[in-house]
Amino acid sequence: MGYMKITSPANLRIKDALKVRDRQARARQDSFVIEGKHLIGTALASGAAIHEVFFTGSFSREKEGREMLNLLSSKTSMLWEVADNILARLSETSTPQGIVAVVTYTSPQLHELYFRKTPLVVVVDGIQDPGNLGTIIRTSDAAGADAVILLEGTCDARLPKVIRATAGSIFHLPVVRTDADTLMRFLAEKKIRLATTSARTGTSVFLADLREPVALVFGNEARGVRRQIEEAADLSVQIPIYGRAESLNVATSVAICLYEAVRQRAPGNS
Amino acid sequence: MGYMKITSPANLRIKDALKVRDRQARARQDSFVIEGKHLIGTALASGAAIHEVFFTGSFSREKEGREMLNLLSSKTSMLWEVADNILARLSETSTPQGIVAVVTYTSPQLHELYFRKTPLVVVVDGIQDPGNLGTIIRTSDAAGADAVILLEGTCDARLPKVIRATAGSIFHLPVVRTDADTLMRFLAEKKIRLATTSARTGTSVFLADLREPVALVFGNEARGVRRQIEEAADLSVQIPIYGRAESLNVATSVAICLYEAVRQRAPGNS
Repeated sequence: MGYMKITSPANLRIKDALKVRDRQARARQDSFVIEGKHLIGTALASGAAIHEVFFTGSFSREKEGREMLNLLSSKTSMLWEVADNILARLSETSTPQGIVAVVTYTSPQLHELYFRKTPLVVVVDGIQDPGNLGTIIRTSDAAGADAVILLEGTCDARLPKVIRATAGSIFHLPVVRTDADTLMRFLAEKKIRLATTSARTGTSVFLADLREPVALVFGNEARGVRRQIEEAADLSVQIPIYGRAESLNVATSVAICLYEAVRQRAPGNS
Repeated sequence: MGYMKITSPANLRIKDALKVRDRQARARQDSFVIEGKHLIGTALASGAAIHEVFFTGSFSREKEGREMLNLLSSKTSMLWEVADNILARLSETSTPQGIVAVVTYTSPQLHELYFRKTPLVVVVDGIQDPGNLGTIIRTSDAAGADAVILLEGTCDARLPKVIRATAGSIFHLPVVRTDADTLMRFLAEKKIRLATTSARTGTSVFLADLREPVALVFGNEARGVRRQIEEAADLSVQIPIYGRAESLNVATSVAICLYEAVRQRAPGNS
């Protein structure tokens, strides 16, 4: 199959994709850039809309690459072969994998969330590190959480570093942005308990009862959970520290709390 | 107090510190560079040998900075005030905190490890990402593990990115480098069970009995645990995946397994 070629880094399609990647295309906040076979394969499998694809000549000559391009060409007509240096520019990794795509994936709104079982919700309150946010989304997916809710002050979930750290999970579960007031009304209405996590106070997560519907709130790396939520919370849990560490990484805390909840909920685990 | 000033980035002390930071000072592999008040404070509290300190003029004029420099001057006479641009060069962060130190902290050898209770050991088999390794050391400290053992092919634990991700825990528990043969002989001798972790096979970590002495082995991000260890292992555990994620981040896996072990071991948790 023949594809159109882009040879100039000043080409409008390239400039446009860079804007989307760097989250500067304000009118297209639902679009973002992903790269590599694994992520693009996950996007294909998840029904994300694929708008545009950039790939290198060597990518199109590999068997796997050719097959992926065939699949992609049924989704979009905007497939561009680009020079290696142009792909390197679109990529944010040091070893680009030869393919980059612009996709759109719209998460549901808060009121559209559907809970198929006892709700388990992760709330992220002001987490700034993209790697942490991406890992939290990946772990929430693995633990079977229903949604990840991002409050004001949390970094953009469609930044390339976040997407990479999700390892594809960005396409697997709803990632919803809302504000604290709306969230608290929603949780009260759905009868989902609000549990804050903290490094220093509260019930040990291993002694707390997490079998009821619960939203676990994880705070900013330095400041913790905002006071408004602390005050409204139904319970406060902490992870015990046995050694000399002052605290745990926030993505680590999410993993321990979520898996403790699913452990308590799984039949035969206790 | 007056300190000597270094004004040229070509100064030998600066060149030397950069070599140590970048792990290119072969004869000084036990020395490494740390930065910021928190890490340097932890080093001071942990009895690390502090060889040399570089700080900016504005750092020395803050009250907290002055106090830290006073403490440091009882440990070393090599305290240098440097221009902001020189400190920025020594620093690997985008917002340097005004102080960098060269320290030496020697971990015990494998045969020197002391177990004060039922051993809980973390073995890292070929993990390459510095952030993952640092987070694993931090979580191992928090969970009260006895040691982190690094096998061949694992990245250098004294790289600045690793040290930062440990958040000080590098000074809190032994981080020992050895080879697989020596480790397996040591574990057999000490009657510590060898448990591999895997994404796809083995007993659920929540059903495995982790109350006996155990060394949990975590493999390379892509390849997993090496076959030699897989074959010698007493048990193999996995973390159940409930959602659509293919796997968990390795530092996340360590957190879930370690905290499940300490949960099982803590009286009153089950």
